[in-house]
Amino acid sequence: MIIIMSPQATEEEIEAVTNEVARIGFRPFTNPGVERKVIAVLGELDVRKADLVEHFQAMPGVARVELISDLWKLASRQYHPENSIVRVRNVEIGGRDVVVAAGPCSVENEAQTIEIACRVKAAGAKMLRGGAFKPRTSPYSFQGLGEEGLKILAKAREETGLPVVTEVMDTHEVDLVCKYADVLQIGTRNMQNYALLKRVGASGRPVLLKRGLGSKIKDLLMSAEYIISEGNHQVILCERGITTFEDATRHTTDINAIPVLKNWTHLPVMLDPSHATGAWQYVGAVAKAAVAAGADGLLIEVHNDPQHAMSDGPQSLRPDKFAELMRQLSRVAQAVDRYI
Amino acid sequence: MIIIMSPQATEEEIEAVTNEVARIGFRPFTNPGVERKVIAVLGELDVRKADLVEHFQAMPGVARVELISDLWKLASRQYHPENSIVRVRNVEIGGRDVVVAAGPCSVENEAQTIEIACRVKAAGAKMLRGGAFKPRTSPYSFQGLGEEGLKILAKAREETGLPVVTEVMDTHEVDLVCKYADVLQIGTRNMQNYALLKRVGASGRPVLLKRGLGSKIKDLLMSAEYIISEGNHQVILCERGITTFEDATRHTTDINAIPVLKNWTHLPVMLDPSHATGAWQYVGAVAKAAVAAGADGLLIEVHNDPQHAMSDGPQSLRPDKFAELMRQLSRVAQAVDRYI
Amino acid sequence: MIIIMSPQATEEEIEAVTNEVARIGFRPFTNPGVERKVIAVLGELDVRKADLVEHFQAMPGVARVELISDLWKLASRQYHPENSIVRVRNVEIGGRDVVVAAGPCSVENEAQTIEIACRVKAAGAKMLRGGAFKPRTSPYSFQGLGEEGLKILAKAREETGLPVVTEVMDTHEVDLVCKYADVLQIGTRNMQNYALLKRVGASGRPVLLKRGLGSKIKDLLMSAEYIISEGNHQVILCERGITTFEDATRHTTDINAIPVLKNWTHLPVMLDPSHATGAWQYVGAVAKAAVAAGADGLLIEVHNDPQHAMSDGPQSLRPDKFAELMRQLSRVAQAVDRYI
Amino acid sequence: MIIIMSPQATEEEIEAVTNEVARIGFRPFTNPGVERKVIAVLGELDVRKADLVEHFQAMPGVARVELISDLWKLASRQYHPENSIVRVRNVEIGGRDVVVAAGPCSVENEAQTIEIACRVKAAGAKMLRGGAFKPRTSPYSFQGLGEEGLKILAKAREETGLPVVTEVMDTHEVDLVCKYADVLQIGTRNMQNYALLKRVGASGRPVLLKRGLGSKIKDLLMSAEYIISEGNHQVILCERGITTFEDATRHTTDINAIPVLKNWTHLPVMLDPSHATGAWQYVGAVAKAAVAAGADGLLIEVHNDPQHAMSDGPQSLRPDKFAELMRQLSRVAQAVDRYI
Repeated sequence: MIIIMSPQATEEEIEAVTNEVARIGFRPFTNPGVERKVIAVLGELDVRKADLVEHFQAMPGVARVELISDLWKLASRQYHPENSIVRVRNVEIGGRDVVVAAGPCSVENEAQTIEIACRVKAAGAKMLRGGAFKPRTSPYSFQGLGEEGLKILAKAREETGLPVVTEVMDTHEVDLVCKYADVLQIGTRNMQNYALLKRVGASGRPVLLKRGLGSKIKDLLMSAEYIISEGNHQVILCERGITTFEDATRHTTDINAIPVLKNWTHLPVMLDPSHATGAWQYVGAVAKAAVAAGADGLLIEVHNDPQHAMSDGPQSLRPDKFAELMRQLSRVAQAVDRYI
Repeated sequence: MIIIMSPQATEEEIEAVTNEVARIGFRPFTNPGVERKVIAVLGELDVRKADLVEHFQAMPGVARVELISDLWKLASRQYHPENSIVRVRNVEIGGRDVVVAAGPCSVENEAQTIEIACRVKAAGAKMLRGGAFKPRTSPYSFQGLGEEGLKILAKAREETGLPVVTEVMDTHEVDLVCKYADVLQIGTRNMQNYALLKRVGASGRPVLLKRGLGSKIKDLLMSAEYIISEGNHQVILCERGITTFEDATRHTTDINAIPVLKNWTHLPVMLDPSHATGAWQYVGAVAKAAVAAGADGLLIEVHNDPQHAMSDGPQSLRPDKFAELMRQLSRVAQAVDRYI
Repeated sequence: MIIIMSPQATEEEIEAVTNEVARIGFRPFTNPGVERKVIAVLGELDVRKADLVEHFQAMPGVARVELISDLWKLASRQYHPENSIVRVRNVEIGGRDVVVAAGPCSVENEAQTIEIACRVKAAGAKMLRGGAFKPRTSPYSFQGLGEEGLKILAKAREETGLPVVTEVMDTHEVDLVCKYADVLQIGTRNMQNYALLKRVGASGRPVLLKRGLGSKIKDLLMSAEYIISEGNHQVILCERGITTFEDATRHTTDINAIPVLKNWTHLPVMLDPSHATGAWQYVGAVAKAAVAAGADGLLIEVHNDPQHAMSDGPQSLRPDKFAELMRQLSRVAQAVDRYI
Repeated sequence: MIIIMSPQATEEEIEAVTNEVARIGFRPFTNPGVERKVIAVLGELDVRKADLVEHFQAMPGVARVELISDLWKLASRQYHPENSIVRVRNVEIGGRDVVVAAGPCSVENEAQTIEIACRVKAAGAKMLRGGAFKPRTSPYSFQGLGEEGLKILAKAREETGLPVVTEVMDTHEVDLVCKYADVLQIGTRNMQNYALLKRVGASGRPVLLKRGLGSKIKDLLMSAEYIISEGNHQVILCERGITTFEDATRHTTDINAIPVLKNWTHLPVMLDPSHATGAWQYVGAVAKAAVAAGADGLLIEVHNDPQHAMSDGPQSLRPDKFAELMRQLSRVAQAVDRYI
């Protein structure tokens, strides 16, 4: 339920409504990014719905009260009809520009990372992606460089000015990752790690939330709701392929998810064609499809030596292929009135 | 296995090789659409492979012998490296142009069909789609007008010049449908109805083969192989959504299938965003994605009165929305060096 | 909608109701297997429901009128609350006994087929399964012996007394298969081949309907409805594994489908652990699970020389392993008050 | 790779081998539960395999060296051919007995919990399950009583003697949960929360690892490997339904997973029919199927007032239904030479 205050509502009236929400057992929530004075009433309303609408309608300063039928509330377009824009340093995600974040799967060493960062920047990427903490299926695989990797990413940012997106895998590591990263990535395996979602919600740092391999679109939005309801509305959603019976590609890109998400939520939506296909040969076609379908950004793996990459080599593009793809993407973006 | 004859090979040498293939128990196959003199050796080669290569290599007029590692042979790019073009009257599918086939899910009556046909033609569609024999999940749902529907489609072709694509559901109906239709559509539920595949293969008429809801890409190609191995190489493949756990849309568009198919086969590939999403709101985004990803064509449901359509109303576009989409698609097509 | 006539209803009253159903545009259907005089009203009732109930309620001889909320009508437990029993010669499927049909995937020759038939009979199988027309993914794989295979199956029946279950793949083969087979099997790829469903419905022969790999349980019931609505209520449903992301086994046995089907329909339910696992090692465990879950029968592949079988060798049990499994199954059956 | 020492190997020889493993960059691992002196060599062996086998073969005291072809090593039956038994107080999981853990989805209050605990104990349950920390899709749903819930569970254990299984959701809660619980449950959403897996691995407490909704069987084993490689071999695997296109039930029970897991790993395997079906009506059939298929245990939700349960009411059995099911399960267990 959301309570929309009239433009003339006084601070006292707003406070009175907020207090009343809390008094009767719900959580009041005011979105700092929203112009209109809107108070969200969070919690399970159940059978009391109709009564509550009437109750708040009658309070001074209240313009109107609306129920949000979606299960997600703060993430819903019903609550926030305009597109949300997430700002990461000088980059805006969710606006006119399609933002491409590119970089290696794992940070392997400083020279490599800086070289790749320079190459992707030159090609038009606006953010640098790279893993320092790597969630690997096998405990015997390379697990990432940890803090050393974060330092290298920060160095690469210094050199290139590109904001850094990197994964955080556990509540314990959130503070550490926040020291170096601009965007906290929640990986597909942690999409429903609720303790972690709450913790990054409390961090106030922009979050890139990747869809779980076996998760429905609505579950993705419920996970976003965990983050936003902690007061952090800077959430970017990311489709990265789901698990299906088809084995020609590593995962199945759910391209339908782009228009569905743009319909159901105001949050920006990115797509990761590298993980969604698992094969560099198919990255270009799916990246173009994503832009044509309305994605606000892309997450693309680029490596200068894919055959010797410590992880995900087969799905990484070489810098020159990436540059060529960026030129193609720019044309597709223009065809849908966007810009890369 | 394919046997490539030298350009100087005589008719007698070609015949000798062909006869030898048959003599040792395999099926010789010559693709009429292929310039080079190539003889495909069809059947399960098993352990005899190496011997057979040597055996044919030694015959007069043979340039070289190649094994085709794909399970599909005649449908493989290894067998036919260039794109195949399927010609339907004056329309070419698989060439530079992206071909849009549009029309109602079911043919309901003459006036409606002709009106829709005129509208979609005016908007730039190059073929008319419409169902006369309808595969419906329930025996109590409208099953299509049958031959009367076919006649209406033929009438609409007369009026507009648009070639007609329509479904055939059983071997018994193939001759009848061939009397009226330009392209025989094999629906998703019949993708592995092998008797029907062989029968449309024998018909010589262009075939639009839709992927089964639970079928892998390689199964789609094996079904195409059934048709081609009957001597009919005019096969158009069609992605139309697969069945997954995601229920936000009726099916999940497998956009990865576009570049995978373009890689694995020389056959043209279309996509049906209407069935793949099940909701008209999402048809536009997915149609644009398909063109950007490299699809050779689209199959789109258009109805002048979706709310009263006898089938699939919720996924049908009104003619004006369709015209608007065609303008957008034309821009996306140009961005990938294609034309609508 | 079903109209239940009072026990005292006269033939004239029943006829009057039947005629009225037809007059107003629906299809009247009387189940010959049902004691009570019940007339099903088939067709899309839409908005007229309430009126129709009242209309028929008022006719002489009508005891009561009930709406069937399931999409399937004649297959619904609402229409026929007791279990249906399908009789195949002296075998009853759907009663107290759990019926095992066993045999080779493909009929390869007479000697082999008769040997296997004798072995499975000795072990307790009650029906013989074997394919003469084989739906193969590749056109180059062994396609079955055709009519010769049917003759061999009939010969094996003569020798052993076991009724024969075999697949029919196309409408034009139905008459031929009926000459030799006791039960017509509709394979997974043809579950929604509606022309074929209607044709086997019209044949009056018992039908074993296998679930499609990508088909929901409700679609299976709708396909059964196609058969029953042609007047053939002798339908046995068969779960045989669905297509999922799990690739440790060829398919995923949907064991939930057993209790769901027993809840939703009166039709007998079998399970095919050979196809559902694709590996003989796992057939036993899943066969026992099926019996424990309430299946009315099993379809098991048995071959005397699996390594040289012309199809499906890896999932076939040797006769001695099968005999051992039958002893184990018998114990599980008793534990759930059934009998093998 | 595993190095099997000869029975006569001295402590010094064992130490020398262990040190050598470490010296050349791998992780030596000795399974405390294994009689034979076996040293596992953990890490990515890559191309050095053959050399390493020879190298260790030549060391004094080494009986033989074996490569483990499975991706999982310590969890593999190749490493540990006998069934592992996990001991939880006086309960053995993985032995002759089929162990049933039962209880409410969420701990709601002391009276309810103790009542249910007494009822399930009386019916034959050997462990008490119940959630204090609840992973809920919505941030606005009841999140569990937290430590208070743990205290109630401990109290219920005191009353009944039943060991307690309860979920832990985050690394920072592990110590707290260990204070009260006998078995740490890793929920489906955290199956690949590697930080948590390592942490419970280090805790030394028995772990019940539930399969992720979209996770393959091999991913489940890799997650088990994370726990075992931290030195904790007391891992119980739990199938709880996977996500598929079928929507007749909340999830699809992968019954094939039971024999596959028993084949691939020595770890005990349980099944949770409550979550795997999502409907109490189907719990009994699937529970019986699991026992027949060879499961070592079951996890069943029981609630004294399902309609007012704070979570998962629709899938909870009433205590009397549970008691009836236990009697049936006992018969099925005996039919497969097990005992409940």
